[in-house]
Amino acid sequence: MVEHDSHTLDTIFHALGDATRRAMLGELASGERTVSELAEPFAMSLAAASKHIKVLENAGMVRRDIRGRTHVCSLDPVPLMSADQWIGMYRRFWTDRLDTLERLLRAADATALPPKKPLPPEDKGE
Amino acid sequence: MVEHDSHTLDTIFHALGDATRRAMLGELASGERTVSELAEPFAMSLAAASKHIKVLENAGMVRRDIRGRTHVCSLDPVPLMSADQWIGMYRRFWTDRLDTLERLLRAADATALPPKKPLPPEDKGE
Repeated sequence: MVEHDSHTLDTIFHALGDATRRAMLGELASGERTVSELAEPFAMSLAAASKHIKVLENAGMVRRDIRGRTHVCSLDPVPLMSADQWIGMYRRFWTDRLDTLERLLRAADATALPPKKPLPPEDKGE
Repeated sequence: MVEHDSHTLDTIFHALGDATRRAMLGELASGERTVSELAEPFAMSLAAASKHIKVLENAGMVRRDIRGRTHVCSLDPVPLMSADQWIGMYRRFWTDRLDTLERLLRAADATALPPKKPLPPEDKGE
C-alpha cells in the first residue's frame, strides 16, 4: 500500500481528529456559514473557533470567501475524498470480518434450531 | 449529522494523522508483526516506534498478543470502519462534484467537436 502525499493525509486526518472541527464540517454540509455563525454553537471564544477553522482551511476542507467585511466559509469535500480513498484500502478487512461473523451466526442457528418437521395434518373430524 | 462517539473518532483520526502509523497499519495489512518487525523500517528508536504502536492500540486498530517474550501485533479493522462511516456521510458532496465536472466536460466536448458526418461510400471502382 503506497502513500503518495503523506503530508496532506497527515493534515487531513489531524484536522478530522477533533469533535469541534468535525461538527463545523457538519454545519458546512448544510450550506455556507460566516465565521461567527460557525463559532456560535461552541462554548469557546471567537479566537479559539477561528483557530479550528484555520486548521480546516489548511487541510483544504474549508474555503473562505471574503465579501466586504464578512468571511464566508464553505465545505470543500476533495480532501475527504482522499481520506476516504486511503481508508478504502482497508475495506476488505472489515467486510471479510463481517462475512465471517455472518457465516458463524448462520452455522450457530443451524446447530441450535431443531430440524423443521412438517406440520401435523389438520383435524378435520370436528 | 449526529456524532455518537466523538472521543473514539478523535482517537482514531488522531492515530491516522501520522505517516509512520499509517505505514505500520499498511505492514499489518500483510499479516502479524512483532513490535521489532514493525519498528524496523523506520529511522527511529524502538522506544519511539513503541509509542506509535501504543497510539494505534489505544485507537483500537492494533491488537497486541503476548506470546512468551514476544509481543505480536495484528490489525483490527473495526475502528477504520467507524472512520469510514463518518467520512461516508460526506460522500455525496464529492460524487456531486465529480458528476458536475463530468457534465461540464461533456458539454465542452459537444461544443468543441464538429458534428459527426457519415463516412463517404467506399470506392468500389478499382
